[in-house]
Amino acid sequence: MTQTSIYNQNLDKNAANFAPLSPLSFLRRAATLYPKHPAVIHGNLHRSWAEVYTRCVQLADALTRQGIRRGETVSVLLPNTPEMYEVHFGVPMAGAVLNAINTRLDARAVAFILQHAEAKILIVDPEFGEVAQAALEQIENKPLVIYTEDPLFDGGQKIGEISYDDFLAKGSVDFAWELPGDEWDAISLNYTSGTTGDPKGVVYHHRGAYLNAVNNIVCWHMESHPVYLWTLPMFHCNGWCFPWTLAAQVGTNVCLRHVREEPIYAAIKEHKVSHFCGAPVVLNTLANADPALKEGIDHKVKVMTAGAAPPAAVIAGMERIGIEVTQVYGLTETYGPMVVSAWQSKWDEVDFDERCRLKARQGIAGVLAEDLMVADPETLEELPWDGETQGEIFMRGNITMKGYLKNPETTEKSFAGGWFHSGDLAVRHPDGYIQIKDRSKDIIISGGENISSLEVESVLFSHPAVLEAAVVAKEDEKWGEVPCAFVSLKPGAQATAEELIAYCRENMARFKCPKHVVFGPLEKTSTGKVQKYLLRERAKSI
Amino acid sequence: MTQTSIYNQNLDKNAANFAPLSPLSFLRRAATLYPKHPAVIHGNLHRSWAEVYTRCVQLADALTRQGIRRGETVSVLLPNTPEMYEVHFGVPMAGAVLNAINTRLDARAVAFILQHAEAKILIVDPEFGEVAQAALEQIENKPLVIYTEDPLFDGGQKIGEISYDDFLAKGSVDFAWELPGDEWDAISLNYTSGTTGDPKGVVYHHRGAYLNAVNNIVCWHMESHPVYLWTLPMFHCNGWCFPWTLAAQVGTNVCLRHVREEPIYAAIKEHKVSHFCGAPVVLNTLANADPALKEGIDHKVKVMTAGAAPPAAVIAGMERIGIEVTQVYGLTETYGPMVVSAWQSKWDEVDFDERCRLKARQGIAGVLAEDLMVADPETLEELPWDGETQGEIFMRGNITMKGYLKNPETTEKSFAGGWFHSGDLAVRHPDGYIQIKDRSKDIIISGGENISSLEVESVLFSHPAVLEAAVVAKEDEKWGEVPCAFVSLKPGAQATAEELIAYCRENMARFKCPKHVVFGPLEKTSTGKVQKYLLRERAKSI
Repeated sequence: MTQTSIYNQNLDKNAANFAPLSPLSFLRRAATLYPKHPAVIHGNLHRSWAEVYTRCVQLADALTRQGIRRGETVSVLLPNTPEMYEVHFGVPMAGAVLNAINTRLDARAVAFILQHAEAKILIVDPEFGEVAQAALEQIENKPLVIYTEDPLFDGGQKIGEISYDDFLAKGSVDFAWELPGDEWDAISLNYTSGTTGDPKGVVYHHRGAYLNAVNNIVCWHMESHPVYLWTLPMFHCNGWCFPWTLAAQVGTNVCLRHVREEPIYAAIKEHKVSHFCGAPVVLNTLANADPALKEGIDHKVKVMTAGAAPPAAVIAGMERIGIEVTQVYGLTETYGPMVVSAWQSKWDEVDFDERCRLKARQGIAGVLAEDLMVADPETLEELPWDGETQGEIFMRGNITMKGYLKNPETTEKSFAGGWFHSGDLAVRHPDGYIQIKDRSKDIIISGGENISSLEVESVLFSHPAVLEAAVVAKEDEKWGEVPCAFVSLKPGAQATAEELIAYCRENMARFKCPKHVVFGPLEKTSTGKVQKYLLRERAKSI
Repeated sequence: MTQTSIYNQNLDKNAANFAPLSPLSFLRRAATLYPKHPAVIHGNLHRSWAEVYTRCVQLADALTRQGIRRGETVSVLLPNTPEMYEVHFGVPMAGAVLNAINTRLDARAVAFILQHAEAKILIVDPEFGEVAQAALEQIENKPLVIYTEDPLFDGGQKIGEISYDDFLAKGSVDFAWELPGDEWDAISLNYTSGTTGDPKGVVYHHRGAYLNAVNNIVCWHMESHPVYLWTLPMFHCNGWCFPWTLAAQVGTNVCLRHVREEPIYAAIKEHKVSHFCGAPVVLNTLANADPALKEGIDHKVKVMTAGAAPPAAVIAGMERIGIEVTQVYGLTETYGPMVVSAWQSKWDEVDFDERCRLKARQGIAGVLAEDLMVADPETLEELPWDGETQGEIFMRGNITMKGYLKNPETTEKSFAGGWFHSGDLAVRHPDGYIQIKDRSKDIIISGGENISSLEVESVLFSHPAVLEAAVVAKEDEKWGEVPCAFVSLKPGAQATAEELIAYCRENMARFKCPKHVVFGPLEKTSTGKVQKYLLRERAKSI
C-alpha cells in the first residue's frame, strides 16, 4: 500500500492497537482470569495459575538481578518437571532465550551446546548432574549452575551453586516484566542433529511460538481447560509449543519424569487426562501394557504422535481403549508440528484398514501454518498430486524458525528460494495429503529422537580398526527405527560387533549407538559412493 | 533485544520464515485443500471453495483492470448474499479496502460515507438501489456503480453500469494476487455512529482481521467445517470477522437476505446449521416463533449474541430447542466481539436463574484479545473487581482498530493513555467477568443497531417547532431498546408526536426514529444540562 493512501495517514501503531505476539500474554491472561485453576500437578504438588505466574515472575526477576540481559541464553537440562514448565515463561519474561537441552545427549554434545549457545546459566536436574558435570569440565566459560530438587526423585547428583527455589526466592513477585520489544525477538533455542557432526541451534521467535501454540488449539479442536500429560519431552521443540498452548487454553499440566506405562495410565485415570503427545514408541508401549492398567478409562483421550507413521497395531491398540490418535508432522525448524493428518468426517464409515492407511499419511498444513509443498529439490517446482511422484517437502510461513544460530551459511541454504528445505521426501496424494517416503538428510528416527547417520559413522571411523562405515535405519518394532552399521575393517585389523558398539557408547549418547553391526565390503557406485539404499535392503533381512 | 545479541545476527525475515498475517491465506488454504467442500449456499446455488476462490481472484483482477489501486476504497450496499461474501476476499486481494455500508442507513448517511471513504466503486443490490441512487445524486465524485442480480429477489431497482457477474467475467482466473505488503495494511472500513453527527470510519488491518478470525474459533471452540447461517449482517464489523473465520475452518456459508423466522428455521434444519450470530432481537424472534417451526432440530446449534445481554426468556426459549447461547461483547472499533461470556464447567450444576445471571454478564477478554480493564475514565486507574464499582471499559491489543479514517483528533482521543476508550460503563465481578451498566457515549442499541441519541436530537432540533429535545433509550421487549424523545416546543409553536416522527423519517434512517415522543419541560441541572438519567426513569413508565 502506498504511503500516500488515506489508509496510511495518522493510523499508526500505538500501545492501544498493537501488542507484540508473545505466548507470555497467555500466561498473564490465565493467571488474571483463572488464578485458582490448577496449572501444574507433580505428584502431590498442585500449583494454580496464579502460583505458577508468581514463580515465573520471580524467576524472571532473579535472572535479571543475576545480570542476565535481553538476548542472552539460559540453558536447562531438565525432565518434564514443574521447573521445566516454569522456565518456558520465566526465562523469556526476563528477555532471555531458553535453551532446553535434550537430556539424552552425552557430555560432549552437551558441552558443545553450552559453548555454542554461550549459556550464562545452566539449570540442571540431579538426574543429569553427572553428564552436566562432565560437560562443564570440557568448556571454558562456565555458566552459573543451578540445581533443581524433586521430592519424587532420589538418585542422581546435585551440582551447582544454588538450588532453583533459593534462586527463585531472590526474585520479587512485583517484577515489572515486559513483552518483547519486537515479536521477532528470540524466545528459545533448540539444537537438532544435522547431517554434519555438530548439532544446529534452531532459533524460535515470540511470534512463531504464539502462532504455533494457537495452531495446536485450532488443529486439535482443543477446548478450554484441557488436562495435558507431559509424555512428550519439553526439550523437543519446546514440547511442540504445548507449554504455551496450555497457558492459552488455561489447562492443567500433569508432569511426568519418566515415560513408563504405569504412571501414564495412573495419571490418565486419576487426573482425567484429555490430551497427550508422544512418538509412536510411547503409544506402542501403552498399547502393549498389562491389560489391567488399561482398564477404567471412561473419558475421552486424544493423543498426537509424530516422528513416524503410527503402525496399524498401535492405532488399533489405542482405539480399543478409547484414545484417539492424530498424526502430525514437522521438524525442529517448524516449531514441531505444522502438518496435521486432519481427519475428515466423510471417512467416518471406512473400514479399519483404510482408516489406518489414511492416518498413516502425514497430512496437510495446519490452519495457521501458511504454506507447504512437495517439489523438485533442485528447481523448487511443485510436483503433481498423484500419490506417486516423490519430491522434497518445503514449508514457508510464520511457523518456520528464525534461522540457525551463528550459522549463516546453513541458514541461507535451508531457506534458499524462499522456502524451508525439510530434507524429507514425500509424495502428495490427490486430496492434498502428503506422505513421507524417505529422509533425504539421512536421519534415523529412533523412539522419536533424530539420529544423524553421519555422526554415528564419524564415531565408527575414529575407531582404529575401522576402514569404512555406513549407517542406515533398520525398521524396529519397538523404536520405529534403529541405527544399523555396515563396517569393513582395515587389513589385518580385528574388532567384534560388541567392541564397536561399546566404543560407540563411550563416545556418543546411548540412543545413537548402532544396535546391529554387519561386517563386510560396502556396496558402492562406480564413483565410490556408498549405495545406502542397497544397505537398507540388506538391513531388512538381518 | 539489543542489536548485538547473537540472536539478532543473520536471523532476518525472509520469504520462507515470514508471511504477513492476512485472512486471505485462509481462503487460499481452503480452496487448495478442500476444493470441493461446499463454501456458499444461497437457495439452489451451491458453490465449492474452489469456485468461490476462483470468483474472488477474478473479482480482484477485474478491480485491478478497472484501475483500482492498492489502498483505495470499494464500497458495497449488499445483504448477506454470495457477492457479499466474495467481496470480503476479492477486494483485499486487489489490495483495495472493503467498505460494507449498513443497508439500513438513509441516502444522506450513505452519501456521507461514499464521499468520506472516497469510494472508487460501489457494488449495490437492487434492494438498496433506490437509496443508493439518492445517495449518488448528493455526491460529486461518483464511483463506478455495479449491480448484483439475485434470482431469489424480485423487487428493487437495478442501478449502475454493469452487472457484478459481467464485471467479474472481465477478470482472469490466473490473476497473480498477493498478500498485503504489510500486515498493518487496511483490509476494511466500517462506519459507526458516534456521539457526534457524522459517522466515523473505523479502519481494520489484515493482522487484526486474521487474529480475530482465529479468536472466534478458539473462543467458540469451533471445530472444522462448521455450517454457518448468515443472520448477522456482514456490514456489522465485517460480520464480526466470521467471513474469514469460515474460510479458516473451511465451513459452509448459508446466505440469508432477510432475517425472518421461517427461512432461519428452514435453513437450520435443511443444512444442519451448526453456528449463527445475531442480536438478542433475532433470538427473541426465533424463541417466539410458531412452535411448528421449531420442531425437528436434532443436532447441536450454537448462537453468539451481542448488543445487549440476552434476557432470561430468550435464553430459555433457545435452550428449549437445543440452541446454546453465548454472549459476546465488543464494538466496531474492536472488530466486533473481543470479550466472551465464557461458560465455566463448574457452573454446569447451577439453577436456571443463576445460569441466566451468569450468561447476562459480558465476560472476559478472548484468548487472542490481549488486554481489557474497567478503569477510572479520567485517570485510567483500574478499579476494584467488586461487582459494584462502575468504570469505563478500556481495551488494548491486536484486535483494536487501526484508527478512524481522516480523523486524527478523534483517533488520538480514543487511544489516549495507550488504551482504547470504549465509552461503555461496566463493573467487574470478583471472577474477572465484566458487566455493562451504562453507555457513556449515549448510544441506544435497537435491534442490534447503534443509534446516536445526539443524531436523533439534532434532527428534532432542526424542526421549526422544536425548542429543546433530548433522546434516551427506552427498554423494549422486541428491540431491546428504542429511542424515546422528550421535546419542548417553542412558545406558540405546535406539533404532534406523529408529525415529529414523520419528520424524523424524512431526515433519518427509519430505525433511528423515536418510537415515543413526550412533550413538556426537560429536567435540567442548575447549569442547564439535561439530566438524562431522570428522563430514562420517566421513559420506563411510558
